[in-house]
Parts: sequence; structure tokens; C-alpha cells
Amino acid sequence: MNNEILIIGSLALDTVETPFGHAEEALGGAGLYAATAASLFAPVHLVGIIGDDFPQQALDELAERGVALEGVQCVEGGRSFRWSGRYEYDMNGAETLDTQLNVFADFNPLVPEPACRCGYVFLANILPSLQLKVLDQMQQPRLTICDTMNFWIEQARDEVLEVLRRVDVATMNDAELRQLTGEPNLAKAATEVLAMGPQYLIIKKGEYGASLVSAEGHFALPCYPLPTVVDPTGAGDSFAGGFIGFLAWAGETSEQQLRQALAIGTVTASACVEDFSINGLRRLTVDDLYSRYQALREMVRFEGISPQASLPT
Amino acid sequence: MNNEILIIGSLALDTVETPFGHAEEALGGAGLYAATAASLFAPVHLVGIIGDDFPQQALDELAERGVALEGVQCVEGGRSFRWSGRYEYDMNGAETLDTQLNVFADFNPLVPEPACRCGYVFLANILPSLQLKVLDQMQQPRLTICDTMNFWIEQARDEVLEVLRRVDVATMNDAELRQLTGEPNLAKAATEVLAMGPQYLIIKKGEYGASLVSAEGHFALPCYPLPTVVDPTGAGDSFAGGFIGFLAWAGETSEQQLRQALAIGTVTASACVEDFSINGLRRLTVDDLYSRYQALREMVRFEGISPQASLPT
Repeated sequence: MNNEILIIGSLALDTVETPFGHAEEALGGAGLYAATAASLFAPVHLVGIIGDDFPQQALDELAERGVALEGVQCVEGGRSFRWSGRYEYDMNGAETLDTQLNVFADFNPLVPEPACRCGYVFLANILPSLQLKVLDQMQQPRLTICDTMNFWIEQARDEVLEVLRRVDVATMNDAELRQLTGEPNLAKAATEVLAMGPQYLIIKKGEYGASLVSAEGHFALPCYPLPTVVDPTGAGDSFAGGFIGFLAWAGETSEQQLRQALAIGTVTASACVEDFSINGLRRLTVDDLYSRYQALREMVRFEGISPQASLPT
Repeated sequence: MNNEILIIGSLALDTVETPFGHAEEALGGAGLYAATAASLFAPVHLVGIIGDDFPQQALDELAERGVALEGVQCVEGGRSFRWSGRYEYDMNGAETLDTQLNVFADFNPLVPEPACRCGYVFLANILPSLQLKVLDQMQQPRLTICDTMNFWIEQARDEVLEVLRRVDVATMNDAELRQLTGEPNLAKAATEVLAMGPQYLIIKKGEYGASLVSAEGHFALPCYPLPTVVDPTGAGDSFAGGFIGFLAWAGETSEQQLRQALAIGTVTASACVEDFSINGLRRLTVDDLYSRYQALREMVRFEGISPQASLPT
């Protein structure tokens, strides 16, 4: 179980409008995106809740990808979580049109016995008290990662701070980082978050890429450039799924491995945004992932200069 | 003259307010910032216009840095260009409070005889018809670079397009790129700009870094992370000055050299924003530049993975 992944997060039916099209009650949710992405690399155990309106075909597909669903509670007669949002041409932020918690309102996550021993844990964006309940059930995981959002930072700040105290890696976008710390300078804000507990902070910057900050310094990657971005929904969760998936598969969590994982997360997210719902992730092959990874490496490569020989004095 | 640099742009007195302080009638202007930065690397010839209220000490200092001022016209009894702006905590965009063209209103740039043979030309942000007048006077430069801004894209679009047809490298920020092309997707918009003439496009993204796009592909760098950003005024011009300065000094304009120059521009800009006016650039030493360059290289380095051995199948 040591190289298997536990993910808690939403399974949802999303209705999304972007300048490039429309999706109606399509498969979505942070947990679903992350599990779909992570399952490219290692076995996944998903914890979440659905109503009996959730398509059986989607569950079958997850199972086929190696996602164990024992932790997904199905409420008879219940309605699944629904989210509806719209993006303008600037795809960096969604306007939420509607959120229906439905079965999520009374969710008490239970981690099935074997999944408690997963080595890798991703707490996707969800009520932080539920993230804590899952952490309580885990038996000495090797690496824990959390995500959060502006709503919880405002409404459940103490629990968010408690989660941060207990995880190894925190992920958030730059706006959330500024909101959490009250510090506009990202480098300073990152230092403050590291002081709150996590050893690593991943700052997600939408189309501008992501960075990884630790006591060892900064690592930063641009986005993988795409001529076609159809729907950014799930990009951050696909990123996190690829990130933790790669680490579980690689079996190491050194700084160098984390950098590679950030690159894997970046290219995984690039596949996600090329289509609505999980369609882009479905099409992503390991060959495609590898060639994007190589292209990303080439995209940031530049030669050194030697001080005496190469700069004027 | 082949490795010398011609820069046209404003010399200004800026009044700037940021959350971290205030500068009153401080040295500024795109031409001044760029020349100060470029002079770290190679001799610079500056073309611009000032009133006799411009501090003599500033001119003496430029001259000491190797900036030839024969092309800077001084209007007796005239007032220098003045700009006044304010930044909020989010330092990515200035709110312009006041612009006084003053002597710039009737500026007819004349490139002094020897400077016509400069190998490297930077047309800083200024009326595009003036950029064209300077280009007309140059004798087969090796590399020409232009900057522009939203105001000219809207008010003098035809001239902006004419400039783009004639330069080797265009620089603009992401908002200007979207404005110019009407295309929200940056990768697509970049392709459109390359079709307008320049061989290279540099996209400036403020605190998110910069990228270099050409037929050969994308190169992208994050910003150099700084715990103290005091005033972003002049960052783009310092970036461009460092960029062209390094190229003039290196004497080559291959893709690899351009990538190195983008990194040099990035670290030069990082010094600029650490203080008001040109104070940060004044303090920047070649040693400091070199160590930031090395740190930036380290910041983006990650190992490759081999497809068979390193990814699941």
C-alpha cells in the first residue's frame, strides 16, 4: 500500500460554459479529476460521496483505471454534488453560477481499512474539517498534500491552519496565498506559509504556471503553452493528481523528485484544459505525457555563463 | 560601432506612489531606464529630449556609465516629460495619475552621425511614428527591438504594425498582445504577431516572468523572486536594456544567446524593482547580476525522465 494514493474530494456533475462551448452535467469534481490524473501512475483509493443519480458508467471507468471506490459512499435517493460556472475569454477565473452541495452537506468521510495504509494522500479542496477527519484515519503516510480555496480560508480559517500544520505539501493559487497571509509579496507570503507547517508550498498561477517553494529555495515552471484551451475546470486538481501520482510511482520525495513531479503535474493539467470534463485526461497517454515533459524541459533550458569569461567587468 | 547600442525613449521626472513609499520628480523614463541597464554591458547612444529643468547630475552620471548623450536634445526654457502614477499592493499595473508630454510634444528625433551605425537598436515605448523615424536613420543594424503600449495600439495601430514589420524582436505585455491581436489565447496570439514581421516576440508578464516565442518554439522564465518589491516602474525597460545590452556585448543573436539575454533581462529587472527610480540599477554590480543569473538557472532546473525506464506503461 506504501506506493498507493488516497484521495479525498468531490465527485460532481458540472455545468460549464466557456467561450469555446458548453458542457451539461458533465463528470467533474476535484476528487474525480485528481483520481483520474493520478491513476495514470499508481493505484488510487478515492473517498467521496455521490447520489444514486451519479452515472454508473463513470464509476466503472474509474475502476478500470485502477481507482478503488470502496470509500465512495452512495446515498440512495440522494442527489450528487453539482457545480455550475462560466469562464470569459480570460480563462484565469471561473464565475460560479450555482453550487448545490446535495449529498455533500452531511458527508462523513470513512477511509476503508486497506486504504488507511496508503503512502500518499491528497486532500483535494473540500471542507477542511473533512480533510482533518481523513488525516486522522491515515496510518503514517509518507507524503500528504492539501489543497484549499478562498471560501474555506475565510469561513474556516482555524481548520485550514490546522490542516497546514499537519501536511507535508500545501497547494494554493496566488490569490489564496495572499488572502491567507495578508501579504501581497508572494516570496514573503510563501515563507510565512512554510512557517505554518508544510515543508513545501506549491503556488498555482493558472496560465502563468506554478512554483514550488521550500527552505531549499524556489523552483518555478511556466505553463505548457497550448493553442487550444477549452475549459480550465479541473486543471489544478489534474495538476495535483499528476504530481502525487508521479511521486507515488517514483517512490521518492527528494527535492529533485518534487521538481520532476511539478513538471508532470504541469503537463497533466495541460491535457485537462484541452477539452471539457475529464475528456482531455482520458486521451492522455504516457507517450504524450513524456513528449510534453521533454518539451517543457526544453522550454526552460538556457546555458550558463561564467563570470570572468562571460560578463563585462 | 557594431557592438554599440542605440536607444530611443523618454527621459522623465516621475512621481510615484507605492504601498512602500513615495518618489517625487525622480529620474525615470523608458529611455533612461533602458540606457542605465544596457550600459552595464556595452556603450549606449541615447536619443531623447529634455527641458533645461532636467538635472545636470543625471546627465553626468549617464555619461560616466558610457551613455553618449549627443542625441539627447535639450530645449532651453522647456519642461521635461513628467509622469505620475500609483501602485496598489498588487504591483502588476500602475494607475497613471498624470502625464505631461511637455518637450516631447514636438520631438523630432535625430540620430547623431556615429550612432547611426550602432549594431543594436532598442525602440523603447514612445510614439510609433518616432520609432519609425529612428529606424529610417539607422544603417543596417544587426538587431532591432521595439516596445509599445496599449495607448499606441489603440491610437496609432497602423504605425505600430509598420514598426512590427521592420523589427527583429517585439516586446509587449500579455494584455497588449491580446489587445493587438484580439486573440485571448497567448500561444495563438504570439503566432499571429510573428506573422506580422518580427522573428521573435518577448511576452512580458510582470511578476509572472517573461517568454520568448519564435518559429523555433517557446522559451519561458519565471520572475526572479524577491522579498522586497518597492516600485515596479521601469522594470520592463530595465529588462529590455539588460536584454539588448547582453546581446550587444556577446555579439551573437542565436536562439541560445537570446535565451541567455532573456535571463539577463529578468535579473536586471529584479534589481530595478527593489528601489525607486534607477537606484536599484545603480547598485547592481556584475557580480550580483551573475549570482542572480546562476540562481535563476538553478530555479528552473529539473532532471529528465527516460520514457521506458521512468514512466509507467
